[in-house]
Amino acid sequence: MAGNTFGQLFRISTFGESHGKAIGVIIDGCPPNIEIDLDFIQGELDKRKPGQSKITTQRKESDTASILSGVFEGKSTGTALALLIPNEDQRSKDYDHNKDIFRPSHADYTYQEKYGIRDYRGGGRSSARETAARVAAGAVAKLYLKQKGVEIFAHVSSAGTINSPNLPVQALSALLVIRESNIVRCADQATANEMIEMIDGVRKDGDTVGGKISCIIRNCPVGLGEPVFDKLHADLGKAMLSINAVHGFEYGSGFAGSEMKGSEHNDIFHVAEGGKPISTSTNFSGGIQGGISNGMDITFRVAFKPVATIMHNQQTVDKSGNAAEIKGKGRHDPCVVPRAVAIVEAMAALVIADHYLRQAAYQ
Amino acid sequence: MAGNTFGQLFRISTFGESHGKAIGVIIDGCPPNIEIDLDFIQGELDKRKPGQSKITTQRKESDTASILSGVFEGKSTGTALALLIPNEDQRSKDYDHNKDIFRPSHADYTYQEKYGIRDYRGGGRSSARETAARVAAGAVAKLYLKQKGVEIFAHVSSAGTINSPNLPVQALSALLVIRESNIVRCADQATANEMIEMIDGVRKDGDTVGGKISCIIRNCPVGLGEPVFDKLHADLGKAMLSINAVHGFEYGSGFAGSEMKGSEHNDIFHVAEGGKPISTSTNFSGGIQGGISNGMDITFRVAFKPVATIMHNQQTVDKSGNAAEIKGKGRHDPCVVPRAVAIVEAMAALVIADHYLRQAAYQ
Amino acid sequence: MAGNTFGQLFRISTFGESHGKAIGVIIDGCPPNIEIDLDFIQGELDKRKPGQSKITTQRKESDTASILSGVFEGKSTGTALALLIPNEDQRSKDYDHNKDIFRPSHADYTYQEKYGIRDYRGGGRSSARETAARVAAGAVAKLYLKQKGVEIFAHVSSAGTINSPNLPVQALSALLVIRESNIVRCADQATANEMIEMIDGVRKDGDTVGGKISCIIRNCPVGLGEPVFDKLHADLGKAMLSINAVHGFEYGSGFAGSEMKGSEHNDIFHVAEGGKPISTSTNFSGGIQGGISNGMDITFRVAFKPVATIMHNQQTVDKSGNAAEIKGKGRHDPCVVPRAVAIVEAMAALVIADHYLRQAAYQ
Amino acid sequence: MAGNTFGQLFRISTFGESHGKAIGVIIDGCPPNIEIDLDFIQGELDKRKPGQSKITTQRKESDTASILSGVFEGKSTGTALALLIPNEDQRSKDYDHNKDIFRPSHADYTYQEKYGIRDYRGGGRSSARETAARVAAGAVAKLYLKQKGVEIFAHVSSAGTINSPNLPVQALSALLVIRESNIVRCADQATANEMIEMIDGVRKDGDTVGGKISCIIRNCPVGLGEPVFDKLHADLGKAMLSINAVHGFEYGSGFAGSEMKGSEHNDIFHVAEGGKPISTSTNFSGGIQGGISNGMDITFRVAFKPVATIMHNQQTVDKSGNAAEIKGKGRHDPCVVPRAVAIVEAMAALVIADHYLRQAAYQ
Repeated sequence: MAGNTFGQLFRISTFGESHGKAIGVIIDGCPPNIEIDLDFIQGELDKRKPGQSKITTQRKESDTASILSGVFEGKSTGTALALLIPNEDQRSKDYDHNKDIFRPSHADYTYQEKYGIRDYRGGGRSSARETAARVAAGAVAKLYLKQKGVEIFAHVSSAGTINSPNLPVQALSALLVIRESNIVRCADQATANEMIEMIDGVRKDGDTVGGKISCIIRNCPVGLGEPVFDKLHADLGKAMLSINAVHGFEYGSGFAGSEMKGSEHNDIFHVAEGGKPISTSTNFSGGIQGGISNGMDITFRVAFKPVATIMHNQQTVDKSGNAAEIKGKGRHDPCVVPRAVAIVEAMAALVIADHYLRQAAYQ
Repeated sequence: MAGNTFGQLFRISTFGESHGKAIGVIIDGCPPNIEIDLDFIQGELDKRKPGQSKITTQRKESDTASILSGVFEGKSTGTALALLIPNEDQRSKDYDHNKDIFRPSHADYTYQEKYGIRDYRGGGRSSARETAARVAAGAVAKLYLKQKGVEIFAHVSSAGTINSPNLPVQALSALLVIRESNIVRCADQATANEMIEMIDGVRKDGDTVGGKISCIIRNCPVGLGEPVFDKLHADLGKAMLSINAVHGFEYGSGFAGSEMKGSEHNDIFHVAEGGKPISTSTNFSGGIQGGISNGMDITFRVAFKPVATIMHNQQTVDKSGNAAEIKGKGRHDPCVVPRAVAIVEAMAALVIADHYLRQAAYQ
Repeated sequence: MAGNTFGQLFRISTFGESHGKAIGVIIDGCPPNIEIDLDFIQGELDKRKPGQSKITTQRKESDTASILSGVFEGKSTGTALALLIPNEDQRSKDYDHNKDIFRPSHADYTYQEKYGIRDYRGGGRSSARETAARVAAGAVAKLYLKQKGVEIFAHVSSAGTINSPNLPVQALSALLVIRESNIVRCADQATANEMIEMIDGVRKDGDTVGGKISCIIRNCPVGLGEPVFDKLHADLGKAMLSINAVHGFEYGSGFAGSEMKGSEHNDIFHVAEGGKPISTSTNFSGGIQGGISNGMDITFRVAFKPVATIMHNQQTVDKSGNAAEIKGKGRHDPCVVPRAVAIVEAMAALVIADHYLRQAAYQ
Repeated sequence: MAGNTFGQLFRISTFGESHGKAIGVIIDGCPPNIEIDLDFIQGELDKRKPGQSKITTQRKESDTASILSGVFEGKSTGTALALLIPNEDQRSKDYDHNKDIFRPSHADYTYQEKYGIRDYRGGGRSSARETAARVAAGAVAKLYLKQKGVEIFAHVSSAGTINSPNLPVQALSALLVIRESNIVRCADQATANEMIEMIDGVRKDGDTVGGKISCIIRNCPVGLGEPVFDKLHADLGKAMLSINAVHGFEYGSGFAGSEMKGSEHNDIFHVAEGGKPISTSTNFSGGIQGGISNGMDITFRVAFKPVATIMHNQQTVDKSGNAAEIKGKGRHDPCVVPRAVAIVEAMAALVIADHYLRQAAYQ
């Protein structure tokens, strides 16, 4: 297997390059009898698609998904479920000049060395375009988790050096309204305005900037996660780190927790008002203990580097090892993080759905 | 599969609890004809074993490994290679009082809920004791990688709020000498002294403290990693996050990189003196681009929370949901990070060995 | 994973039902730089497609494949390779009467019980239509194996009680000419004529008949197969048994070998004329010893039951457990074996390609 | 992964060679809270162990199993469960003469070519000794299935050309009594006597003979099996074909069914007396339709070749390609089939347990 497959029981295989005919996914292990709401799937894809605002790439794709199999009379059959998303706006000519040149901090060089061949148009398989297939599959996972009452909410908590304050304790649906009301998808309106202004400035400079996404998974039952190697946070980490441009993952107290003392960090158990379930007074554990969910909110953060395609000329080398110059032209995406919110939620849904099934197997 | 297996081609399955008879591992996919140096394996285990210094747990285990299969006349046969490490110093009576109580921030509650049964002695399978099996397997992976010239070096770069400076550019063997000359395994002697003093103070307080481990993988060939889901850094991240007490993983520029601009962050290619291989002037990419190694040093950092066993009494609940008190007694490990260096290196070796084989398959 | 994925390194996931929009496959692990000859793939599909002769089903499908990803300038890129085959001639009305009835010896009952829902049109996912996706993927595997010089040849060696004689020792290309010159795909012309006449009689009776396919894999290198569980013949067996209507698999001396003595059955080694490679005087081992290929022809046989759709009325039960009658109408395929030759070869190619890569990993 | 792992959810990894220190297994995915009866496990091992009668090998091993992990207070914990079986009677000197010689129809040549190194003593990993680990794991699977009411019964239905009649419809417990009352493990006493006499004659000739094992799995629920690739009979076939000396697998009507007409072969549904469950009048389907169990008895047969170690001198070649002679000496096992009954049942239990968990995941 060469890396295009994810998950044990809720398993997906994706395909598709930036400038190929289409991208798509097969879900092998979608439970049967789930209402497959194509409008919902399309809505999730719309949150990721390019051309959605002035602060993202201007490539125009409708990312229209269609179902090819695995659904009958609106419900999943339990057999292989395939979704297809045609590519529409490939401007392959934009990339002719890339044919023999390695763009800095892109995957051009590594793909060329690994495979001995690369589809250079738009980055080929290394392009973030493939994440549309993940979002489609994640939408199906979300439909499954809806039945279970699990909620997943992510938002842009940092863009560059601008950080949003910690979110108030609130229904995730309320946070979702705020998030979707601004084009940077931050759940704090004031911070969102700052971020948009900053990113627009970066865009005018032809530059790019990174950011962080914070995510909450709520109402996860106790018992998900498979120690010792498939701990829930380890699978979440792998899922997030597999997203283009991600350079870091932390959950619960994260990196800051490494500076704390045990006497400060321990989450004290108490019985929730009215009896079960047990909960904790603090949540430095981020909802996961010993790699298994404990019922508290699962919280984690994902760090994105600034993407490598900048509208400046850069010095580089070509395939023959000679000095070359890469022109600053083509598709410019000043900050991918607003669009990545949908991908983070999709990957979280895929991991939780997978672990739901794995735990169900042993009941 | 319930989480006790790791890797695709260089695959391991581990077993063993804190107070069971033994811990061990089967390697399914060790290449044939590798010199299996049992002394080397034992040396790696010695770096992880308990009772090694005043600033770690005082449990006395020799962690003596023996080979049960898969080796003939000193070389791996390519068949299943099994290693066994008997437990010696289980003080099960220490844990009788834990039988019905959930220790805060431990896995007691989650294991009880997930499985409906738990071996409470010493934390059972949730105990970090299982990591001895990982270190044994990682040692075999290191023996394989030695043939390839790959070097792996980790050290304690932070303990609590004490941070070591960035390491000088130097041969890893030189850094190793410094690291092994102090009981906290920091490759900067001055910082090491600070750390030891701080941790000893924490130990006297009956408390615990966290820290960070930084790791360098050098001489990794170009081309390891399997996009899109099994990117090299994603597999490294999952590997590290599966280690007890880990709450964060970042590689290259990490979380700090999310605050940078693309014009600052891009690593410019240049041809190394004398021709191939291509290298980069900076290394914010941490040696991995598009999820595939590019030949530069792979750099990453792992954040450890302070472990939960503190020598203070704590309020908690028992299995029936009633208030209870957990006594502050038993094995005290003020800081696990010095011993975790061997585990981080072992997991890195397992990931690199696995990806080496995966890339070799397609040549 | 719910059974739609096959293979470790040359891995495929398929999707598609009899009456859905399309069927297709993603290959995750196709080596890079293989010439992907779409005409060759189409040629393989043509050997499996319905409506090809008077002795098969009359459903008309062109089974036209298109490549959606993973190929650039005619060569595989090493990234996910997707093939799509639209369905054209679904006559769903033919199956309305099946909605609540369980056809004898079909998968209707078991799918209904397993999933709680089933796409009854044309058998849904249980229909042999999904094998078109396998043949497409197997064709890509064949293109890879062509580079290695491996040849795969299958033919119909039995239809009902009519058996072809053992094939003469001959170039497989010569046998292929004979096989493709008759509509039952038997490599002995005289037997083919008998078979065609018998099957045509069965067709007129509205009945079905089974048969056997024999297969030879030639020029397989020594060393393919992964004891103890993924022995080469075990993986071939699983592959063949997964094909619709298959009830038996044997290799080498097969079931007959169980009646022999060791002194008769042992294959004596001798050095081939002119030096290496070692070969055997007899080949009761079927080219595989200890689960690993030894360089001799790999030989195996696959037994197909008569398919269950007969043009007679049959007594059965409906979903409520009441007696019902199934009408003898719809698509009639008197003998699936001539079309299954392409599927057997495809599955063999997938297994050999997978094991080729697995062995290459450890070189 | 190099072939030492089996199963998806009830997964096992085994290790151990004929003359190594020990053989053993890790079960990764044993459900929690199963009573692990070590006496029962030992009883199953005793049915497989060498030296048990005059018609088997005279190697003396007690095959005494011990539990190293995964069991607490007599019950499985849901964590990795490891079993160890030390080797006792390795007569390595017996094999010195094999060092450079390839024994006919053994795995010597293929292992040497595949790995470039082989443990020649007693066949190393290719020896059937490794099957003791499978039987130990299969015993745990049987303990799990006991809770579900599933019964598995295998017996020797053929030895050489001697065939037992079809078994009467009877409680499997009654057949078990007959089977265990004779040393060839045939459930028909008259046939057993013939078989024993024949095998003893073969033994005196220093020769070996093959046979067949028939197996029934009763009370399997409807719904086990994962089309399209992990059909229940396909996984059973792979499991059986992975056993040493197996050359064929068939289920239900098997090879004979290929000669039948659909009008004869179809199993007509009828509702069982008293309502559910639906059953069939005949059972050519062998309890599996569309790859999924339908509640009827699952029936299959496994063909074993005569093993290759005969007490005659044989011509062969050595590692340098020169003619050599292999002496007819060492451990002689005239017929492995009586001991293989326990292995067939164990592998069946592993497959059914695995599919039980896979189906449970989606409920």
